Amino acid sequence: MKYKEQDLLDSLKEETILEQLSALSGWDALTGMPQDSGHFRSEVDAYLAEKQFLVATQTKRRDMLAYFDDRLNELSDLGREIFPKVKKAYERFAVLPQKDYVDFNKTMSLAQNYWAQARQENQYAIFEPYLKQLIQYEKQFIPLWQKDEKTPYDVLLNQYEPGLTVEKLDQVFDTLKKGIMTLRKKIMTSDVEIDVSFLQRHITKKDQKQYALNAVQRLGYNLDKGRLDDTIHPFMEALNRDDARITTRWAENQAQMAILGIFHEAGHGLFEQNVNSKYDWVRAVLPISMSIHESQSLFNEVMIGRTRAFWRIEYPKIQKDFHGIWDDITFDQFYAAWMKTEATLIRTEADPLTYPLHIIIRYEIEKAIFNDHLDVKKIPELWREKYQEYLGLEVPDDLTGVLQDIHWAGGSFGYFPSYALGHLYAAQFYHAMSQQMDFQAIFESGDYEPIFSWRAQHIWQFGGAKDPADILKEATGEQLNPQYWLDFMNKIYTDIYQIGDN
Amino acid sequence: MKYKEQDLLDSLKEETILEQLSALSGWDALTGMPQDSGHFRSEVDAYLAEKQFLVATQTKRRDMLAYFDDRLNELSDLGREIFPKVKKAYERFAVLPQKDYVDFNKTMSLAQNYWAQARQENQYAIFEPYLKQLIQYEKQFIPLWQKDEKTPYDVLLNQYEPGLTVEKLDQVFDTLKKGIMTLRKKIMTSDVEIDVSFLQRHITKKDQKQYALNAVQRLGYNLDKGRLDDTIHPFMEALNRDDARITTRWAENQAQMAILGIFHEAGHGLFEQNVNSKYDWVRAVLPISMSIHESQSLFNEVMIGRTRAFWRIEYPKIQKDFHGIWDDITFDQFYAAWMKTEATLIRTEADPLTYPLHIIIRYEIEKAIFNDHLDVKKIPELWREKYQEYLGLEVPDDLTGVLQDIHWAGGSFGYFPSYALGHLYAAQFYHAMSQQMDFQAIFESGDYEPIFSWRAQHIWQFGGAKDPADILKEATGEQLNPQYWLDFMNKIYTDIYQIGDN
Repeated sequence: MKYKEQDLLDSLKEETILEQLSALSGWDALTGMPQDSGHFRSEVDAYLAEKQFLVATQTKRRDMLAYFDDRLNELSDLGREIFPKVKKAYERFAVLPQKDYVDFNKTMSLAQNYWAQARQENQYAIFEPYLKQLIQYEKQFIPLWQKDEKTPYDVLLNQYEPGLTVEKLDQVFDTLKKGIMTLRKKIMTSDVEIDVSFLQRHITKKDQKQYALNAVQRLGYNLDKGRLDDTIHPFMEALNRDDARITTRWAENQAQMAILGIFHEAGHGLFEQNVNSKYDWVRAVLPISMSIHESQSLFNEVMIGRTRAFWRIEYPKIQKDFHGIWDDITFDQFYAAWMKTEATLIRTEADPLTYPLHIIIRYEIEKAIFNDHLDVKKIPELWREKYQEYLGLEVPDDLTGVLQDIHWAGGSFGYFPSYALGHLYAAQFYHAMSQQMDFQAIFESGDYEPIFSWRAQHIWQFGGAKDPADILKEATGEQLNPQYWLDFMNKIYTDIYQIGDN
Repeated sequence: MKYKEQDLLDSLKEETILEQLSALSGWDALTGMPQDSGHFRSEVDAYLAEKQFLVATQTKRRDMLAYFDDRLNELSDLGREIFPKVKKAYERFAVLPQKDYVDFNKTMSLAQNYWAQARQENQYAIFEPYLKQLIQYEKQFIPLWQKDEKTPYDVLLNQYEPGLTVEKLDQVFDTLKKGIMTLRKKIMTSDVEIDVSFLQRHITKKDQKQYALNAVQRLGYNLDKGRLDDTIHPFMEALNRDDARITTRWAENQAQMAILGIFHEAGHGLFEQNVNSKYDWVRAVLPISMSIHESQSLFNEVMIGRTRAFWRIEYPKIQKDFHGIWDDITFDQFYAAWMKTEATLIRTEADPLTYPLHIIIRYEIEKAIFNDHLDVKKIPELWREKYQEYLGLEVPDDLTGVLQDIHWAGGSFGYFPSYALGHLYAAQFYHAMSQQMDFQAIFESGDYEPIFSWRAQHIWQFGGAKDPADILKEATGEQLNPQYWLDFMNKIYTDIYQIGDN
């Protein structure tokens, strides 16, 4: 059988359309879909997953791959660029039995509903049977995916970050844990008293929204290609580069939460909005690696949203948008409170310094589930033990414990470590950029365009067409170096807590 | 080839799933989809339309229909009940060339974007080329659908109301026009002065929402199976019986608009939420006739939302929810203002008495387009002439003229008359119900359940499985009789304007 490139592109377009529909359905389910309709939606989601599976694994796709494998010269530049990704995606899906994959997706849809219910009732047991089923599916799929990975959990890590292993990650997390612990101990010796009480002052959702949406637009997030909605667990969902939606959670006595949350999700949105248009209809086979995606949300949230230079310029703007409620607070008081580090029960409320500890806990639990057969019933117990050990915190209930994240309900295992890698990448990008531009001068000018352009040129345009390690290497001139993140944190916190640097 | 009923049901389920996805996409496109993403969405919508077309017209569907046509005994009760509808739907689609149908849907998606743009620029010319294309498609399709209908426009009417003809409708509309004109002339002789200025007092969206959502819930609209969003042109979109979404337009100095709009859309929502669950996955072939659907939205809006007995009970509630802004207004003052009849430019803002004139204008224009080859360029001119003639109004621009309705942009021609039929049906149902229940006593009790139950039992449960004429006959004991509507209007307006009845 003879094929044309257009045959392949048509097939990728269908897959991409189905993915856009799944994205719309997923966004809708988490932003206000009527609660009784979950049972209908799970059938619809299963249908979409089945169709996408069929398109991605059908005999025709296999035949086209075989055909072009020997005839790369018959493909355009774009065709040759994406061909290896199409192959990789094919192999990822093709090994799964169709029925299991469809059932897995149906279970996932149900699991998300029951996760939400379990949260309402504050009872892990409601969610547990569905989590267990999802894990069983994953365990069933892992041997089908496994190539030369050493452990089952390596297989899952690899799906989000090519080449990542438990062995490497154990080392990286060990370095991080030690570095964080050392710094936290020093901070505890500080005499600096930080008053954060004004951060709890009542600020309406409307005022918070006014400031945060303007701020992320100054950073380049485009509301003609996005929107902001309310949800329980904030996320960004991109249907396409012209439709990258962000969501947030609001509390009128915790303005910092929504503001940094919106900075974070808008960072994801910026990435999606600026992917090269040539990839528009092949995006289904070019997923953006989670680590590099997270590096951009965290760049917004931490490298910008937690630095003195940025807030020195933005603070008067926030004071104005909040109608003077912080007029009695000096900039130094504001910035110290904004940066105060303190262990929290909720990952998404964690400050940048303690955040990686939340990830390390989840990493260790996932490792125990997939490599050491941890009983799903015992997850809350292990969760409590680790929060006590690493963060010194008593976990009072499931809602503030194991039920806080949607990830597992969404079938994402091996995903959490990407958040930590995202932190490390973000710091390394920031270091490279600061060699080439003066952040302080840019913030003072009020025109953040150079930051936008650098990120668009060096990172966003490639979408998922380039591996994260290559993006990092070409943008920063070196391999991953976790020291940049530790340096960044040491600099910030020795400043705030007036402690000697080393 | 031998088939099982399950084969047919599977195929109808796929079609229904695709329809639910189209509904979600359509709702999303009109409630906040980022504006730049229309070009992506039109590809997605075209894909869904193509898939649905394929499922509904594929050889397998034809073969199954042929198979069961001779073997109805192999079908369950449900199968036998819906079989004629499946056949009818097959024939409706099967005659269309697939490519044209897909292109038509793509054009429709674009037309909706350009309609919105044309509204922003207040310029019909922006929308006109797309409207022209849609009409050309319809004209191309009509001969393919035509059986024994006498004129092309009869074919379109028939799609929304089985058996309806231009001949009949000319008569009905003639009766209506005369009846309305006679009553309006009498009203003009009335000495009653109605002050409506307090209806323009500033009432926040939040307060309007508070009252209107509570009121429609008292009428049975279930927010666990629905939601309320903002849009330009209010509509109800049902993905399924557990997800019937309503939308409205707000103006803080015109509370009546959103309240009656929400009553109206919630009437549609009530219908959808209470269709028998046995039809869940065959709904794609059981569309609810527009006239009967409208009879339920209008029942809410007019038979309830415009009657003295209802408002006598609800007025204190609205006064409370509006924080006393109408405390200086007596009930009689309120009800007179609520009911004041006056010609308006905008159909959706029309009072019940003048409303049918808006429909008659659209009916006559559509008839001219399809039966008399009216040039699409000349529609605004004809529009202006008729508004002058029937309503005595000067149409100042396209926004308040021909661009006010989304229907044509959505490819709905022959749909408008259903609104008028809906009025007539609603009045006839109301008459039949008032023979069996005491509306006044029900409103006074505060428990509107008997009204809900009667409608659910006699109308809603059947969904689109029963033809509207049959529903009407069985529920009211007689054929369509337009006199009930004229009687209702005469009673209401002779009361308000204190004019002798006849």
